Amino acid sequence: MIKLAIDAMGGDNAPSEIVKGVNLAVKEFDDVEFTLFGDEEQIKKYLVPSNRVKIVHAPEALSMGEKDPIRTIRTNKELSLVKAFQAVHDKECDGVVTAGPTQGVIVAAHMIIRRIPGMQRVALCPAMPVVGGKSRLVLDVGANTDIRPEHMLQHAQFASVYLSKTRGIEKPLVGLLNIGTEPGKGRELEKEAFALFEKCESINFYGNVEPKELFTTPCDIIITDGYSGNICIKSVEGTAKAVGIILKEEIGKSFFSKIGYLFMRKTFKNFKYRMSGAEVGGALVFGVDGIVTKSHGSSEAMDFKFAIAQARKAVKGEVVEMMKTYLSLEEQNNE
Amino acid sequence: MIKLAIDAMGGDNAPSEIVKGVNLAVKEFDDVEFTLFGDEEQIKKYLVPSNRVKIVHAPEALSMGEKDPIRTIRTNKELSLVKAFQAVHDKECDGVVTAGPTQGVIVAAHMIIRRIPGMQRVALCPAMPVVGGKSRLVLDVGANTDIRPEHMLQHAQFASVYLSKTRGIEKPLVGLLNIGTEPGKGRELEKEAFALFEKCESINFYGNVEPKELFTTPCDIIITDGYSGNICIKSVEGTAKAVGIILKEEIGKSFFSKIGYLFMRKTFKNFKYRMSGAEVGGALVFGVDGIVTKSHGSSEAMDFKFAIAQARKAVKGEVVEMMKTYLSLEEQNNE
Repeated sequence: MIKLAIDAMGGDNAPSEIVKGVNLAVKEFDDVEFTLFGDEEQIKKYLVPSNRVKIVHAPEALSMGEKDPIRTIRTNKELSLVKAFQAVHDKECDGVVTAGPTQGVIVAAHMIIRRIPGMQRVALCPAMPVVGGKSRLVLDVGANTDIRPEHMLQHAQFASVYLSKTRGIEKPLVGLLNIGTEPGKGRELEKEAFALFEKCESINFYGNVEPKELFTTPCDIIITDGYSGNICIKSVEGTAKAVGIILKEEIGKSFFSKIGYLFMRKTFKNFKYRMSGAEVGGALVFGVDGIVTKSHGSSEAMDFKFAIAQARKAVKGEVVEMMKTYLSLEEQNNE
Repeated sequence: MIKLAIDAMGGDNAPSEIVKGVNLAVKEFDDVEFTLFGDEEQIKKYLVPSNRVKIVHAPEALSMGEKDPIRTIRTNKELSLVKAFQAVHDKECDGVVTAGPTQGVIVAAHMIIRRIPGMQRVALCPAMPVVGGKSRLVLDVGANTDIRPEHMLQHAQFASVYLSKTRGIEKPLVGLLNIGTEPGKGRELEKEAFALFEKCESINFYGNVEPKELFTTPCDIIITDGYSGNICIKSVEGTAKAVGIILKEEIGKSFFSKIGYLFMRKTFKNFKYRMSGAEVGGALVFGVDGIVTKSHGSSEAMDFKFAIAQARKAVKGEVVEMMKTYLSLEEQNNE
């Protein structure tokens, strides 16, 4: 049995949509047991009873607008998020799924579950839209603003293990995010990372990838530092927003276009949903000793179920165990 | 009379579309004289004769795929681009408009026209789409991968002068691109730049701007280093590409949607054009002693005319002169 901890109070639509997402997952996956951390009375309102679901009463939620998540998580052990992460640390659960605030999730992963021995930095890896039948991993997008090439290499190794174990991609192709494709492009960080990646045999290195190819590159994994990665995915988000505004303005300009829109309403809705990347699952925190999946803050039941499905696959694939073995072997080699 | 040098051989559609763009501009602006640098015979095929247009024979073009623009520009003085930039350096022209390759344009601006005394770094400032009635300036997007906070401040000052003189915005609002909005976010570079911008009285500082607000922020100007800026605008480009692919995939899925598309063909065309930012003009190189406007590589006549219009406004607004005065005053104050 796979054991997942669920932060039932995290996100804008908690607990109702979170619990409904769990209901869907209980039905779909018969190999998963759930522990829901949250307000027991509230949860019971929405929960379809099952012998694979239990509730741990934890009525306090980390606010989505929390300004100082480090301090709050350190001092308030009663938060549903803290208790859910604690269950992973204590090995009562294999992974945790939450729709809580990103910064809080990274902090809790880091401070409560803790890094795998030998893993030097954690990485945040968001859900990216499927384009051309493929969803690529981009990391780190914000766990570390300052990073060294060797940390980036570990991220590439972790992501490679993840994809091979969860999506069956045998040798995932790894690209390095950069401002040009030729070797020698970028800052010192990219030049050093390029040299390191090139001589590493445990990853399948492609070379530099410009963000204009973010959704068309043959790469499965795109590695960058947390600052550039954050700029990159927030630029994607900003552009998606601009697309919505410009399309609306253009549709408003012509009568024919308004008619066309009536025929295409569902298409636009699907388009918007696909751009969100939610169908892929949630964002992942790589590098800690357990699976951490963060569904987006405005998750509805179906989105949360996708995030659960993703966590299930990662636990089933023994991603963390593989990486642990890998890191300990590497350490022995270095000795 | 405003005197503009035109690189008639730059871009994918040179010289035909470039010359046609000049024809449009000659008709629209009676206060501009043009010197076209390129293959005389070719140019004459498309040019509507005018006493405000002359041709300087320079048949060699800088290839759009040029791998080593620094070396080529340094060694080949016969290139149409080199001759056009030289005319600005020699004060025969006030500005230059080209659709040549970006890297070549930055190199030529830097090496041939040269920086304004006191200006420590040049900056590349691309054409951004108009969203909500506003097109924002984002800079630097690639002239410098390593930059210091004081260079960023000069870029903010230059862009502020540019907007006040060309668009009549009295106190343009300046934002700092960052991964969070609160002061104290980002790397050391952003923290130091924030402190510097905050105490500078010659710019109207707004604070940090996340790229997800790139097209919705109230800011007129967004300042960043050349690496992050390049990642940002290429992510915009990559997303625009993904939008096209996903929309196509979604439209293909349903019969109704295909019908809707027939009604909306023109809307989608307009949308695509607006996303390109071409209606705003071209990319600008700030910091050199003359106006440099780079129209996009695949420019057609109308796009090139927009770039000419933009260069004309900048010359008319005496942007370079203003900045020179400003920098020399500042130097006196520092002495």
